[in-house]
Amino acid sequence: MGISDEQKVGFLGSCKRKLISVMERIKKLGRDDPRRIIHSLKVGLALTFVSLLYYWRPLYDGFGIAAIWAVLTVVVVFEFTVGATLSKGLNRGLGTLLAGALGVGAQHFASLFGQTGEPIVLGIFVFLLAAASTFSRFFPRIKARYDYGVLIFILTFSLVSVSGYRVEKILELAHQRLSTILIGGATCVFISLFICPVWAGETLHNTIASNIEKLANYLEGFGGEYFQYEDGEENIIVEDHHSKSHNKLSCLQAYKSVLTSQSSEESLANLASWEPRHGKFSFGHPWKQYLKIGSLTRQCAYQIESLNGYVIPADIQVAIQFRRRIEESCKAISSESGKALRILASSIKTMKSPSSSSKTHIENAKAAIDDLKHTLKSGYLESSDLLGIIPDATVCCILIDIVKSVEKISEATDELGRSARFKSVEATVSPEKTSQLLHRGIVNPVFEGECGDGDDHVVIRVNDNNNNNEVDEIGKCQGNLDVKPTSKGEIIVCK
Amino acid sequence: MGISDEQKVGFLGSCKRKLISVMERIKKLGRDDPRRIIHSLKVGLALTFVSLLYYWRPLYDGFGIAAIWAVLTVVVVFEFTVGATLSKGLNRGLGTLLAGALGVGAQHFASLFGQTGEPIVLGIFVFLLAAASTFSRFFPRIKARYDYGVLIFILTFSLVSVSGYRVEKILELAHQRLSTILIGGATCVFISLFICPVWAGETLHNTIASNIEKLANYLEGFGGEYFQYEDGEENIIVEDHHSKSHNKLSCLQAYKSVLTSQSSEESLANLASWEPRHGKFSFGHPWKQYLKIGSLTRQCAYQIESLNGYVIPADIQVAIQFRRRIEESCKAISSESGKALRILASSIKTMKSPSSSSKTHIENAKAAIDDLKHTLKSGYLESSDLLGIIPDATVCCILIDIVKSVEKISEATDELGRSARFKSVEATVSPEKTSQLLHRGIVNPVFEGECGDGDDHVVIRVNDNNNNNEVDEIGKCQGNLDVKPTSKGEIIVCK
Repeated sequence: MGISDEQKVGFLGSCKRKLISVMERIKKLGRDDPRRIIHSLKVGLALTFVSLLYYWRPLYDGFGIAAIWAVLTVVVVFEFTVGATLSKGLNRGLGTLLAGALGVGAQHFASLFGQTGEPIVLGIFVFLLAAASTFSRFFPRIKARYDYGVLIFILTFSLVSVSGYRVEKILELAHQRLSTILIGGATCVFISLFICPVWAGETLHNTIASNIEKLANYLEGFGGEYFQYEDGEENIIVEDHHSKSHNKLSCLQAYKSVLTSQSSEESLANLASWEPRHGKFSFGHPWKQYLKIGSLTRQCAYQIESLNGYVIPADIQVAIQFRRRIEESCKAISSESGKALRILASSIKTMKSPSSSSKTHIENAKAAIDDLKHTLKSGYLESSDLLGIIPDATVCCILIDIVKSVEKISEATDELGRSARFKSVEATVSPEKTSQLLHRGIVNPVFEGECGDGDDHVVIRVNDNNNNNEVDEIGKCQGNLDVKPTSKGEIIVCK
Repeated sequence: MGISDEQKVGFLGSCKRKLISVMERIKKLGRDDPRRIIHSLKVGLALTFVSLLYYWRPLYDGFGIAAIWAVLTVVVVFEFTVGATLSKGLNRGLGTLLAGALGVGAQHFASLFGQTGEPIVLGIFVFLLAAASTFSRFFPRIKARYDYGVLIFILTFSLVSVSGYRVEKILELAHQRLSTILIGGATCVFISLFICPVWAGETLHNTIASNIEKLANYLEGFGGEYFQYEDGEENIIVEDHHSKSHNKLSCLQAYKSVLTSQSSEESLANLASWEPRHGKFSFGHPWKQYLKIGSLTRQCAYQIESLNGYVIPADIQVAIQFRRRIEESCKAISSESGKALRILASSIKTMKSPSSSSKTHIENAKAAIDDLKHTLKSGYLESSDLLGIIPDATVCCILIDIVKSVEKISEATDELGRSARFKSVEATVSPEKTSQLLHRGIVNPVFEGECGDGDDHVVIRVNDNNNNNEVDEIGKCQGNLDVKPTSKGEIIVCK
C-alpha cells in the first residue's frame, strides 16, 4: 500500500544481489572441492534407498516401525571419507551388539529382585555404566578411535535395559533393531566404498605432499623477495619461475596453513587406519610415518614463519655491503632447499623413491652454507656496525636451520619410501634433467683460496644452449670431486 | 591341568600389574581435571532421571514407547561444557521443529499424487533435502555453529516424511516425540547448568591466561639457560625464581602446547557464545577478543620456538667475548618481557586492568633493546670472526621481535580490559612492589658515553636490604628522567 514501485525495485534488487552472492559462494565451495557435491548426492541416494524399507510392502511387513533405525543409522553414520564412515559404522555395530547383550543380561538379573526391586537395580546399572563409559571417553586413545562406539554403547544399554522393563518381546525387538541398523550401516559403507569413494588416506597423502610443496614455493621465492634493494642504484629483481607475479605473494604465503595443520592430519591418519586397501595404498600402509613427516614439515614451517618476519624491511638500517656479500650464498641455500623439498613432495605424490637429485640439492645447499660460513669467517666488517648486520645474520642462521629441517624431512621421506615400498626411479632421471638442475640450482660464488691450493682447480665453461655431455659428466662425478659452478656458467672443480 | 602353581602366580602377577597401571592412569586422568569425574556422574544422573519416564507408570502411560527419545536425547546432547550442551540442545530442538513441520507439509503435498505417486514424490523430497542440507554443512560458518542442527534436520525430515507414509496418527506421533525430546533436552540443560557447571567461556579465559603464563615462564628462564658457559672458567648458572630445578626443563618446554592451541581455542570461543551470563562473565562477553589474544600469543610462541633452537649449543664455535657483551641486555630483554607477560596473564585471570607495571616492564625491555643496539653499534669485533657471533646475533634479533609481540599482546589485553570492563587496580600497586620490580628487573649495563655528556649523570647506591624511599622516588620520576640501574645496585640517572 505505502510501498512505491521504486522501493519495490530497490528491495528486489538487494534480494537479487544477496541471492547472487550466496550462489557464488555455493559455486566456489563446489569448485574448490567437487567431492563435496558428490558426497551430498551420495547421502541423498543412501537415504532414499533405505526409505524403500518403508515404501516396499514386503520389506515393511518384515521390519515394521523398526525401519526408522535404518534411516537414523544412515544419517548419523554417513561421513565424508570412507575411513570415517567405516569407523562410525563399525563403532556403531560393535557398540550396539555389546551393549545389547549386556542390556539383556542386566534386565534378566534385575528381574530377580521382584516388582519393586527391578527398577531400582536397573537404575543403578544405568547410572554406573553411563558414568564409567562417559569417563572412559576422556582417555585420549579411546577418544581418538572409539568415541562414537562408547556413545552408542551407553545409548543402547540404556535403551535395552530400560525398555526391557516394559516391552515383553525384548529379543524380537533387539533382532529387528539390529538387522535394520545392519541394513543402514551396510548401505552407507557400500555407497561410500563404491561410488566415487573419498579416501582419508589419499587425502592425507596429498595433504602432506602439498604442504611440503608450499614450503618449497616459499623457499624458492624467498631469495628474490628478500634481496631487493630499495635504492634505485641497483634494482635487482629476481624472477620467480614458479608463480606468476600477480599471485606471487599469496603463493608465498600459502605456507601459513601448514602452521595449523596438526589436528586435521592426525584425524585423517586415524581415519585412514580404518580403510581397506585402495589404489596405491595397501592395508597397513605406514600412515604414522606421514604424521612424522607432517610434524617435521610443520617444524620447518615455524622456521619459515620467523624467516618471513625479515622480508618486510626492518626499522634497523641495513648494512647493504654485508647483505651483498651474503646474497649469493643465501639465495643458493634457500632455492636449493626449496628444490629439494619440491622433489620430495613430488616423490611422495607419485610414490616413487626420491631421485638422488633431492640429495644433490641438499648437498648443494650445504656447500652454499660452507661458502657462507667461509664468507663470514674471512670477511672483515667494513663499518664495524654490528647492528646493521643483525637482521641478515639472523636470516643466515634461520636458513642454516632450514637446511637441517629439510634434511630431516628427506630422511623421513626415505623411511616412508622404504616402508611403503615406493618405486625406484633412478633410471628415469635423464642426463638433460640433471644438467638443467645443475644450471638452475647452483649459484654459489667462489672465493679465492677456497680450493686450498690455488693451482688445483679447473674452470669449465658450460654452453647454456646445448645440454652437452660435459655437464652430465660433472653431474656424475660429483661424489668424488668438489664441484663449484659459479653464477656465470663456469664450473670450478677442486681436485 | 598342565599349569603349575608358579605359572599361575606369574599370570596373576602380570594381571595385577596391568590392573594397577590402568588404575593409575584412571587416577591421573581424574586428578588432572576433577571436572571429568563430576561430568561422568552428571551423565549417569541425567540418564537415570529420564529412565523414570519408563519406571513411573503415570508418565509411561502418557508417553509410551516414545520415551526412548528422551534417553536418546540425553545421551547425545549431554556434553562436557554448558556451552556445548546448550548448543547441541538448541540445535536439536530447532532442527527437530523445523524438519518436523516441513516433513508434515511434504507428506501432505505428496499424498495429493495418489497411491502410486506418493512414495516417488516423497523419495524425491528426501533426496533433494538430504543432498542440499549435507552440502550446507561444508560452509565453514554453518559447520562451526549449526552442524548438529543440520544433521538433526535431515534425520527428522526423513523420519517424519517417510514414516508418515505408514503411520496414520502422524501429528500425535510428532507431539509425543517432541515432548519427550524436550524433556530429555531440558534435563541435560538443567543438570549441566546447575550441578557443578563447566563453562566453556571460563575454560577459554583460563586457557588464554595460562598460555601467556607459559610463555612468561620460558622468557624468564631463558637468560639462565642460554648464558651458561661450558668452559669451567666461569660457571655462571642463574637461579630460576619460578621453577624448582628438577622440573625446570619441563616447565620451560610447556610453551610448546601453545603452538597447537588454535583449534581448541576456536571451538571453546564458539561454545562460549552460546552460554548465558555466569560468574564474572556477562552475556555478550567479548570472546572474539580472546581469540585475538590467543593468536598473538601463538605468534609469540612461534618466535620462542625458534629461540629455543639456540639454547642447545650449536656446532658453530661461539664467540664467547661477544656473548658476554650482549649477555646483560639479552637477559634483561627476555626477563622483562617475561615479567610483562606474567602481569598480563594475571590481569586476565583476575579480570583486573593490568597495572602500569606491565607497561613499565615493556619499557624496561625496550630500554634494554636500546642498550643492546648501542652495544652492537659501538662495539668493534675482536676477532673479525662473524661466523661465531651468528647464533648470538640471531638470539638478539628474535628477542627484539618478541618484545614487539609482547607489546601487541599487551595492547590486545588492554582492549579486552576495556570491552569486558576489567576493574582498575592502579591504587593497589604498593611502592614496595615498584621498588622490588625495579630491583629484580633492570640489569642493563651502562656504557660510557651513553648519557651524552659524561658529567650529566648521578650515581645512587641502593641498599638492597632496605626498601627506602629513595628507590620509590626514582620509580616515580622515571617518566622524565632516564633511569639506568646497573647490575651492581647502582642507579645512574641521565638528566
